Amino acid sequence: MEYHKIDQTDRENLRKLIAEPERFITQPTEHWDHDQFRTVRAMPELVIQPVNNDEIAGVVKYANDHQIPLVPRGNSTGLMGANLNVNGGISLDMVKMNRVLEYDPDSLTMTVQAGIRLKDIDEYLADKPFTYMPAPAMHWATIGGNVSTNAGGLKAIKYGVTREHIRELKVVLTDGKLYKFGSKAVKSASGYSLKDLIIGSEGTLGVVTEVTLRLYPKPHKSINAIIPYPTLNDAIRSVPAILASGVVPTTVEFMGRKVINLWEEYAGEQFPIKNGDGFIILGLDAFTDEELKVELEQTLKAVKSFNAEDAVILAADSAEAKKIWECREALLLAIQKSTPKMDEIDICVPINHIPDVLDRIEELETELHIRIPNFGHAGDGNLHIYLCSDKMNEQEYAETSKKVINELYKTAKALDGNMSGEHGIGYARANNFEDFYGHDYTELLRKIKCLLDPHDILNPGKIFNL
Amino acid sequence: MEYHKIDQTDRENLRKLIAEPERFITQPTEHWDHDQFRTVRAMPELVIQPVNNDEIAGVVKYANDHQIPLVPRGNSTGLMGANLNVNGGISLDMVKMNRVLEYDPDSLTMTVQAGIRLKDIDEYLADKPFTYMPAPAMHWATIGGNVSTNAGGLKAIKYGVTREHIRELKVVLTDGKLYKFGSKAVKSASGYSLKDLIIGSEGTLGVVTEVTLRLYPKPHKSINAIIPYPTLNDAIRSVPAILASGVVPTTVEFMGRKVINLWEEYAGEQFPIKNGDGFIILGLDAFTDEELKVELEQTLKAVKSFNAEDAVILAADSAEAKKIWECREALLLAIQKSTPKMDEIDICVPINHIPDVLDRIEELETELHIRIPNFGHAGDGNLHIYLCSDKMNEQEYAETSKKVINELYKTAKALDGNMSGEHGIGYARANNFEDFYGHDYTELLRKIKCLLDPHDILNPGKIFNL
Repeated sequence: MEYHKIDQTDRENLRKLIAEPERFITQPTEHWDHDQFRTVRAMPELVIQPVNNDEIAGVVKYANDHQIPLVPRGNSTGLMGANLNVNGGISLDMVKMNRVLEYDPDSLTMTVQAGIRLKDIDEYLADKPFTYMPAPAMHWATIGGNVSTNAGGLKAIKYGVTREHIRELKVVLTDGKLYKFGSKAVKSASGYSLKDLIIGSEGTLGVVTEVTLRLYPKPHKSINAIIPYPTLNDAIRSVPAILASGVVPTTVEFMGRKVINLWEEYAGEQFPIKNGDGFIILGLDAFTDEELKVELEQTLKAVKSFNAEDAVILAADSAEAKKIWECREALLLAIQKSTPKMDEIDICVPINHIPDVLDRIEELETELHIRIPNFGHAGDGNLHIYLCSDKMNEQEYAETSKKVINELYKTAKALDGNMSGEHGIGYARANNFEDFYGHDYTELLRKIKCLLDPHDILNPGKIFNL
Repeated sequence: MEYHKIDQTDRENLRKLIAEPERFITQPTEHWDHDQFRTVRAMPELVIQPVNNDEIAGVVKYANDHQIPLVPRGNSTGLMGANLNVNGGISLDMVKMNRVLEYDPDSLTMTVQAGIRLKDIDEYLADKPFTYMPAPAMHWATIGGNVSTNAGGLKAIKYGVTREHIRELKVVLTDGKLYKFGSKAVKSASGYSLKDLIIGSEGTLGVVTEVTLRLYPKPHKSINAIIPYPTLNDAIRSVPAILASGVVPTTVEFMGRKVINLWEEYAGEQFPIKNGDGFIILGLDAFTDEELKVELEQTLKAVKSFNAEDAVILAADSAEAKKIWECREALLLAIQKSTPKMDEIDICVPINHIPDVLDRIEELETELHIRIPNFGHAGDGNLHIYLCSDKMNEQEYAETSKKVINELYKTAKALDGNMSGEHGIGYARANNFEDFYGHDYTELLRKIKCLLDPHDILNPGKIFNL
């Protein structure tokens, strides 16, 4: 697709759509050329920070009429370059769309602008009896970004992912009109769910401007425990038994001693649990302590035959518990610090097939002489797998990591899994999409993209190749 | 759209695609001309009962190539005429696609053919530790039908509707190819969710042939209770308080003495609870009896200030409980028996707005001299509202019911609700769709329909007007 380069006339015309000059940035700095990972770098020609739906509608329409790429951008916590202007154009930086528009506990909903951060939603709800349940580890991500990748998080097993907690979206399409998809009502059997089409579309079909969230009663009681195992393999193999125990846990995370060692080095701290090489972090929610106690007993009984050692209860305010959560949440940064360059894939496989993926990772580490630390959401079959460059030169690393990625996608595909559980495809993996999902399937996505964005101006170059 | 009438050549060509002659019905009987409601009647030109994906693919391709309408049909428990050949053509009767293909407890999934009935799935799982959680009251509906309307049921508050329990669909599109949408993996951030586009599309975009269901551990303990109130209004107004109590119930149903009286007449039985004019049926699931006890106490405390009288626990096998559930499940039939003709709408509004709908219904009853009994899923804001013809003549009833339907859709729209919570739009309400959702929104749906079904052969005339 040939795009129009933004010129002085465009700047003048677009400037008229935005009330304050400080939200119209004609000389973007480095701040706008990368995401959390910095693997992909690309500078927009212009940054616009809208504060309302009208400004967004005007900018989208202008971009569409003038063949200018438009890339919605949240707080750039993504890893796949989905927020980058790889074809130039406008970066639509949503961080000033950060207001709570309505708190409506009677309908169990809350409506926010798309650029609000998860941590701001949490803070807003801190003294209220309800919560927004999904719990992605990146608290400073925006809700718009969460919608665009259908973000998962630490509580998906029991409560579902972002998709299940979105009641209504306001979306500007390329015609410059504002649409309402979904409603505050809980259920719908009223035609095609365009809301669900937008969720996970990574800004390629429309610009999400407002989000109505489902509110959920805050759990009265919660308990977290960490279970050590002699090997990571033992830990992982116990997961289907946990999920078949009759208990529905909130959280089932796995991590191994290898990544914990990296965190110890990174943080200059000691991990509080000395025994075990593999760990499951378990979370349970309930209304009574008695329920938690019995559910925990039942779960621990289920893992006994997988060589589980004595579980350690993570008392909410203990130093020990704090350290373990700190470790879990800093694993990505710890791995990142251990290597000059890093890439990631976050395949999601049926929950019983995590061991197959881990076996394949070990084989690839040996075969291709690359370190591939990993951890993840065991209860969802969703792994975060990191490819470390270590001492490889740039070309070696590029070739090796490409091979690893291709091989692990092959594994995921063979197991009836998905390319990404929660991080999205973005720019970094768009070349792999058609291989994974096939030509016919990708053609369907292309047709939908062309239908809603005929000039390919919305976040072009992402998810799949047109 | 001009359709081709099925002729002898078509019959010969189509016949070759189907192995056994008894599954190729050239003289359809009355069995195929109606749904549960019998309001719409239309006879197909030909009925085909496929048993595998290849047969379906062949028939879809032939229909598409020859401009013949093709209407997928489950067990005809629908109320909106969605399963009817209103433009003639082929009825693709799925009831022989009724096999369990795989039970895979390790991945918490089960794969079935689309024509299997809910009751058969239940029976298959009877001796297993897992269940398919959604609980539509029509146990003899097919899972394909459930997918096509995103069916709700009695447990949606806690566990969600059909959409949340479908992992993967096999779908034949008009190109005659079989597609896989979704996967056995729990999470996906891998491009547009075509699975979610198909769910709720009432057979207008593709033919669902196989469904991979999410399995859920059977709840260890359950309790049901019925709470009487002096008025239905009191009952309904207590619902937001229940949902804000911190407890997440499985079931919150409402019914009033008026519909119960109809059931007593219909069944020749006495409703076991003598006090109260309005009732909430409450269901709770948990792992321990202690949890149930405390959750029930908490819920009953929450409804006290709404004049709730003493709740009656529905012991699982008691005659009383059995009678109350029988009553709840037979309400539709009881109302149907009380009137020569009947129509229904099942609008879904934000949960706190059910009283507004009930007020409007009362006004309309008085204004238009029509009886409008109702009951429904209070916890979801989803009402089942029945329009009884009683002594009106055909024309009077047609005019009056049209007015009521229009008025109640206006009410639902003003409250940010949906036209249908679980029964779908079908043929009966397709004329109302654009009024409710607007021209621009409906245009988007039209474009998607044209994209996937350019010749409008898949269930034409349903959901909205092209």
